[in-house]
Amino acid sequence: MRVGLFGFGRTGKAVATILLQSKESHLCWVIRKSKVLQHRSVPEFLGIQSDEPGLIFPKDEWTPQQLFKEHPVDVLIDFSSAEAILSYGEEAARREIAIVSAISEYPSETIDFLGKLSQQTRVLWSPNITIGINFMMLAAKVLTSIAPYTDIEIIEEHFKAKKEVSGTARRLAKALSLPEESIKTIRAGGIVGRHEILIGFPYQTIRLIHESISREAFGNGVLFAAQNLVDRATGFYTMEDLLIPYFNLK
Amino acid sequence: MRVGLFGFGRTGKAVATILLQSKESHLCWVIRKSKVLQHRSVPEFLGIQSDEPGLIFPKDEWTPQQLFKEHPVDVLIDFSSAEAILSYGEEAARREIAIVSAISEYPSETIDFLGKLSQQTRVLWSPNITIGINFMMLAAKVLTSIAPYTDIEIIEEHFKAKKEVSGTARRLAKALSLPEESIKTIRAGGIVGRHEILIGFPYQTIRLIHESISREAFGNGVLFAAQNLVDRATGFYTMEDLLIPYFNLK
Amino acid sequence: MRVGLFGFGRTGKAVATILLQSKESHLCWVIRKSKVLQHRSVPEFLGIQSDEPGLIFPKDEWTPQQLFKEHPVDVLIDFSSAEAILSYGEEAARREIAIVSAISEYPSETIDFLGKLSQQTRVLWSPNITIGINFMMLAAKVLTSIAPYTDIEIIEEHFKAKKEVSGTARRLAKALSLPEESIKTIRAGGIVGRHEILIGFPYQTIRLIHESISREAFGNGVLFAAQNLVDRATGFYTMEDLLIPYFNLK
Amino acid sequence: MRVGLFGFGRTGKAVATILLQSKESHLCWVIRKSKVLQHRSVPEFLGIQSDEPGLIFPKDEWTPQQLFKEHPVDVLIDFSSAEAILSYGEEAARREIAIVSAISEYPSETIDFLGKLSQQTRVLWSPNITIGINFMMLAAKVLTSIAPYTDIEIIEEHFKAKKEVSGTARRLAKALSLPEESIKTIRAGGIVGRHEILIGFPYQTIRLIHESISREAFGNGVLFAAQNLVDRATGFYTMEDLLIPYFNLK
Repeated sequence: MRVGLFGFGRTGKAVATILLQSKESHLCWVIRKSKVLQHRSVPEFLGIQSDEPGLIFPKDEWTPQQLFKEHPVDVLIDFSSAEAILSYGEEAARREIAIVSAISEYPSETIDFLGKLSQQTRVLWSPNITIGINFMMLAAKVLTSIAPYTDIEIIEEHFKAKKEVSGTARRLAKALSLPEESIKTIRAGGIVGRHEILIGFPYQTIRLIHESISREAFGNGVLFAAQNLVDRATGFYTMEDLLIPYFNLK
Repeated sequence: MRVGLFGFGRTGKAVATILLQSKESHLCWVIRKSKVLQHRSVPEFLGIQSDEPGLIFPKDEWTPQQLFKEHPVDVLIDFSSAEAILSYGEEAARREIAIVSAISEYPSETIDFLGKLSQQTRVLWSPNITIGINFMMLAAKVLTSIAPYTDIEIIEEHFKAKKEVSGTARRLAKALSLPEESIKTIRAGGIVGRHEILIGFPYQTIRLIHESISREAFGNGVLFAAQNLVDRATGFYTMEDLLIPYFNLK
Repeated sequence: MRVGLFGFGRTGKAVATILLQSKESHLCWVIRKSKVLQHRSVPEFLGIQSDEPGLIFPKDEWTPQQLFKEHPVDVLIDFSSAEAILSYGEEAARREIAIVSAISEYPSETIDFLGKLSQQTRVLWSPNITIGINFMMLAAKVLTSIAPYTDIEIIEEHFKAKKEVSGTARRLAKALSLPEESIKTIRAGGIVGRHEILIGFPYQTIRLIHESISREAFGNGVLFAAQNLVDRATGFYTMEDLLIPYFNLK
Repeated sequence: MRVGLFGFGRTGKAVATILLQSKESHLCWVIRKSKVLQHRSVPEFLGIQSDEPGLIFPKDEWTPQQLFKEHPVDVLIDFSSAEAILSYGEEAARREIAIVSAISEYPSETIDFLGKLSQQTRVLWSPNITIGINFMMLAAKVLTSIAPYTDIEIIEEHFKAKKEVSGTARRLAKALSLPEESIKTIRAGGIVGRHEILIGFPYQTIRLIHESISREAFGNGVLFAAQNLVDRATGFYTMEDLLIPYFNLK
């Protein structure tokens, strides 16, 4: 699976690390915002031994047409900005390259645009692309359908400087039909990120807890998304859509 | 749903309490080992206001034939002993009364006997009949199929006096293909019961935690089992079998 | 140590159980509100084997003068009502019987009254008389003096029906100079009681967690209080005062 | 407070970062094993804005005599190797420079040597120099003296690749008089480090939990050690010794 990555900020770098270390993916290139490039490849930049090219290109060095022609890939991963898709989307769809976007928020026109692209290729968009959080959300949904009389609480913990309520917690709340205001928000020290869904039965308690160790977690999610998208039909997907088949136990 | 209960020890009483409080079940009678009966009904015994009969009968007052004829029920709940089923099983199967057994262990002949009964009626046997533990086991199975490269640890905590490794933890280990010896056993003070399945990813951790508050938790499990068994075909079931359909997300 | 107990509600009964089981205390009598007495002793009532008298008296059977003369004790434990102390306090102080009160709230006049009594005898008043909570409060105080730059969060979890914020959590907040509104309140199912003090450092986190299993926990606290009060001088004490000497490590 | 740092490996770099960011310390220089130096200062190397010199010297560029004369410091921090102290110890003691060593293990002769140095200057040695772990150990000691009848369990969690039982957990066990074999060891994924001391009472549970986020935690411990050592008399200290005064509540 040949991969191209848009975005080489802190999360982009972490994702690139995972892609380079994985045997199932082949990192062909990375598009970086900054034009000042001291290094020409990701392995060199990150100090990782690898025979994958991982070429680093500044944002405007190529048109999408040239890039996809000269350096063809099977999947595009997007950790850059809400605008990037507007420039490369059509050419990618035309070439039926799968698109995996982890952009936090898109304006509604861009969401419509993603919808249009998904008529020609496979498009996945998930603001939180970790396996753990998406699994936890689905598991909690299952449990509330088994035991609808239980009480649910969502607790999220992050570093002191994080101002707003966690977007992931808000997604969990929405998925479980809880009001956003009911989320309990803990801010202390340097906590990377912890989400808990507590399900209270009359005489037992279940806690589903997700703890982030570092942003490399997104890398494993991206790999999972890319691999599971490959055999799918043209269309629009979320991480949930890709996880649901695994819940169909026999 | 008319219910008859075998067993009126500590867990039997807790289950009877839940059955009396539930609007979906109607506790007709309880079979008790002891012949010394100061009270003739469960509501009186437990001090609960209820218009359900909940008659308390000593073990040998009735033959199963007489009992099921005079006091007909739809479901039998068994929290008594491994022998009880041998006396009432055939008559129950003949009358197609559903059987829910929470007996910890049966000799293999009795398991065969249960199998035979299940050709005539619905038989459910689950040593741990709580919703929480069985949900957790299935959820962990799903997660390991999504992310087979993760490391799993099972940790169980109970009160100091509990000698052996928790049977529930052993079941979890078996279901997740872990060796029994890998279970981490904590014994301290008066902990009622806590089971944790920890799933370690390279950059994130998921914890599924079940905490028991009191043995009434079995009551909710029994109710769930009885209700979900009613519409099922004749056959042999476990709690897992009843929970699996809820995992089939769309 | 001969003990007399005021109050035989749910907590009073749990405390009486612990006192009967302890070899260090001798439960002489219990004063009960209800006049309808089917049983004349606590061991009989609770079904516990014991050679301690544990006589049950209705509230108005004795004047304090008669009671303390006929059935002398060393310590009084009060789990009854905010008014009880007004009737027995003076006579107890006159006889220098130690007083341990676990009443949640007193009007300010009664607090003054306790102060007066403490000029003649040892008086301890602590609304939460468990060892665990009081230890946790002092330990958190120590830690914040070591690392004043840390962030502190208090999280309390209780059963769904509990309406107001936990009084214990409010006491913790006050002791740690946190605004009451900063307490995070979780309400779900049948959780008995869980209090967490989370201390966030830039690169590490400490959690002090107290989990209540049942109200018998008050019994161990009462025993500790009574035993540690015996050798103290006349005066007014809280649980904190009795715990502080144990923190003086060498 | 002028500081010199021995050791510039992963932990050394993390500690240097904290020292540079702190207003209470002034990082004068770092001694590095490697002779290949691309950068001549720590701020430059780490990309941190700072007006502290933070000069990087290769191991053999200076004799201790020259170094301490040309670049005088008040405290030495040692995160290098068990041998380093042998070369700089005597000269540091002669000049009464405080020594803070976080070396994991020393041969017994070197421990004797540290003892001799401590007759001339203040020497602190603690293999785990975080505030959190040392606080937790002392707090648990206090609690076991208050409630000696409780059961204690130590649980440690680390990344899968960590082979042996955590040294910190072994220290906790020793301090609490528990056999080393009783430690419960969890190995899964990328867990940075989590230590729990669980104290089980009959009807309540206390958990003291320490979670490591990153090795920068050692930096805060080192700063605390250096600052608290400054006003102390000549002698040999551990982190515990420096924390104990904070436990003396009034």
